[in-house]
Amino acid sequence: MKRITSTLVSGALLGGFAGAAVAQDWPALPDEPPVPEDNPTTEEKVELGKKLYFDPRISETGTVSCNTCHNVMEGGDDGRRTSMGVHGETGPRNAPTVWNAAYLSVQFWDGRADTLEDQAEGPIVNPVEMGMPDHDFTAERISGIEGYREEFEEVFGDDKIDIKRITKAIGAYERTLVTPDTPYNNYANGDEDAMSEQELRGMETFKEVGCTSCHSGPAFAGPQMPLGKGFFQEFPTYEDNEYVEKYDFMEDTGRHEDTGKDDHKHMWRVPTLYNVELTAPYFHNGAVDSLDEAVRVMGKTQLDKELSDQQVDDIVAFLGALTANSFPEQELPRLPSMSGKSSVIEHRP
Amino acid sequence: MKRITSTLVSGALLGGFAGAAVAQDWPALPDEPPVPEDNPTTEEKVELGKKLYFDPRISETGTVSCNTCHNVMEGGDDGRRTSMGVHGETGPRNAPTVWNAAYLSVQFWDGRADTLEDQAEGPIVNPVEMGMPDHDFTAERISGIEGYREEFEEVFGDDKIDIKRITKAIGAYERTLVTPDTPYNNYANGDEDAMSEQELRGMETFKEVGCTSCHSGPAFAGPQMPLGKGFFQEFPTYEDNEYVEKYDFMEDTGRHEDTGKDDHKHMWRVPTLYNVELTAPYFHNGAVDSLDEAVRVMGKTQLDKELSDQQVDDIVAFLGALTANSFPEQELPRLPSMSGKSSVIEHRP
Repeated sequence: MKRITSTLVSGALLGGFAGAAVAQDWPALPDEPPVPEDNPTTEEKVELGKKLYFDPRISETGTVSCNTCHNVMEGGDDGRRTSMGVHGETGPRNAPTVWNAAYLSVQFWDGRADTLEDQAEGPIVNPVEMGMPDHDFTAERISGIEGYREEFEEVFGDDKIDIKRITKAIGAYERTLVTPDTPYNNYANGDEDAMSEQELRGMETFKEVGCTSCHSGPAFAGPQMPLGKGFFQEFPTYEDNEYVEKYDFMEDTGRHEDTGKDDHKHMWRVPTLYNVELTAPYFHNGAVDSLDEAVRVMGKTQLDKELSDQQVDDIVAFLGALTANSFPEQELPRLPSMSGKSSVIEHRP
Repeated sequence: MKRITSTLVSGALLGGFAGAAVAQDWPALPDEPPVPEDNPTTEEKVELGKKLYFDPRISETGTVSCNTCHNVMEGGDDGRRTSMGVHGETGPRNAPTVWNAAYLSVQFWDGRADTLEDQAEGPIVNPVEMGMPDHDFTAERISGIEGYREEFEEVFGDDKIDIKRITKAIGAYERTLVTPDTPYNNYANGDEDAMSEQELRGMETFKEVGCTSCHSGPAFAGPQMPLGKGFFQEFPTYEDNEYVEKYDFMEDTGRHEDTGKDDHKHMWRVPTLYNVELTAPYFHNGAVDSLDEAVRVMGKTQLDKELSDQQVDDIVAFLGALTANSFPEQELPRLPSMSGKSSVIEHRP
């Protein structure tokens, strides 16, 4: 069992653009992400969570698992503009990567979930994602599988299965999905040869033009905040440019869609940039195809700057230094089955 | 590189019910399945094939991989009556297990593919399965990913990617998906304690009532035939019973749907019974929910016998002895990515 106390940045700001632009050194990703007090990590819980994460029976049709949209065999996302759930339906937003999501202090594009556990509750009962009628039904289907009952008993002390335990296990697994081995981190930890000349030049450009105003901190997602406190920014900050209409950035009002508050209009959680090279297409609506275009768009919409081709190339090279050299090696999980019956057929909505 | 010469049963029959009812001893599954001459197995090819098998980008929407319907984390199928492909559409037939499919001499319910390689070509371009417009497009999308080009070069000598090479790699991987470690096999190989009393009683009942007329041979899928030669039987053989209408067994005419030949009406490839406990629901249309009911149905439709509850229970117990004690341990594959782009977006139909 491991516990990490999250490092709190005193005086961290909850909104506003300029305030966070504190110059800082180049931090490395901590080896371990923060863990909520009520869900200590254990090896058995991680193993159970991994099974649930890969199990498509957690969706109505038995076809969509957590891994379907957050594919840990690749960039932790699905490579689509917006994800496709049960019955081939699509939602309005792009799937964020699960890699290093454990370092983020709030989850979802609009930060509406405080923890990985809270986040995991959402898609299961979202009609266009996993489409389960409710959380009780989900627990009932999982409970129908003897192997799961045994594992819940081992992990939680008895074989009660409910959504809280399901998401605790999934959250514990997701906290293992971290990629500290990147050229940038190795450089930040003292290996001067870990980054190329262009990557280093891009790192300077990244700071110089102002990207670090928001993309600072250990995950390049803003200063480390306590779990449940988000680091939000307005996107787009500058609306008067060709990109905003071209990529339809104004339709979705971000955090406002969750809270209804006017001052949350177009406020978004600042996403991590780790492995951003692997998570095209880009932005909350997945409207932008390529990373170089995404950098150009950010320069214009957030900094009101036309970046030169050289600047874009260098920043893209730097972002590539945030791509994992290696990902955690994982055994393919073995999912428990019913004997002579299908849980998708036995427990249907 | 491994090669297995398939053991041919001389005089094996290609159809007809009674002819195959040759009494035989209880064979064990051979350690290795047959390998076609033009696709020798190599370690690198298996690794490449595994990546392709798990890669959802092989489908139009980037959401459906081979593993979606043939889930090797579970019973090698999807637990659904009929599979759900891109756009949430469903086809007419139940997904057969991929476990030990390598031992079968023809593939698909109607045996229309000679080899695993031929089989793999089908779903990719089936509009309700993976929905790719054609095989060239599929190869083009895979070719757009640098990591794949490198692996194809390593495996095949140059970086040409076409459907034949794609399916050769997938077929080579599928030949590793075998489960020789079952109670029955261990018993057949001399471990007298490997099966319970009820399982042994069920084994005798299985033979006595006539199941072995068709479910004989190393995979309980009929006598071992040369690759490309199927062992077909009529289903249902006896139509005058309650099950045929209840489970709608006559609508799909089986092999006849492929060949159009009258004497192929309701002819089906005899499926393996290994891991049948894990692959509910049952039959070509997935209409039967549970294994005990499937056994009852088979007794009536194939042998014109009303099996007693005791017989059914014992046969089900025996079939459970064909469930793997262990499955091959596998690393989760790491799929190569495009840099700063999504292949699903870049190469769309």
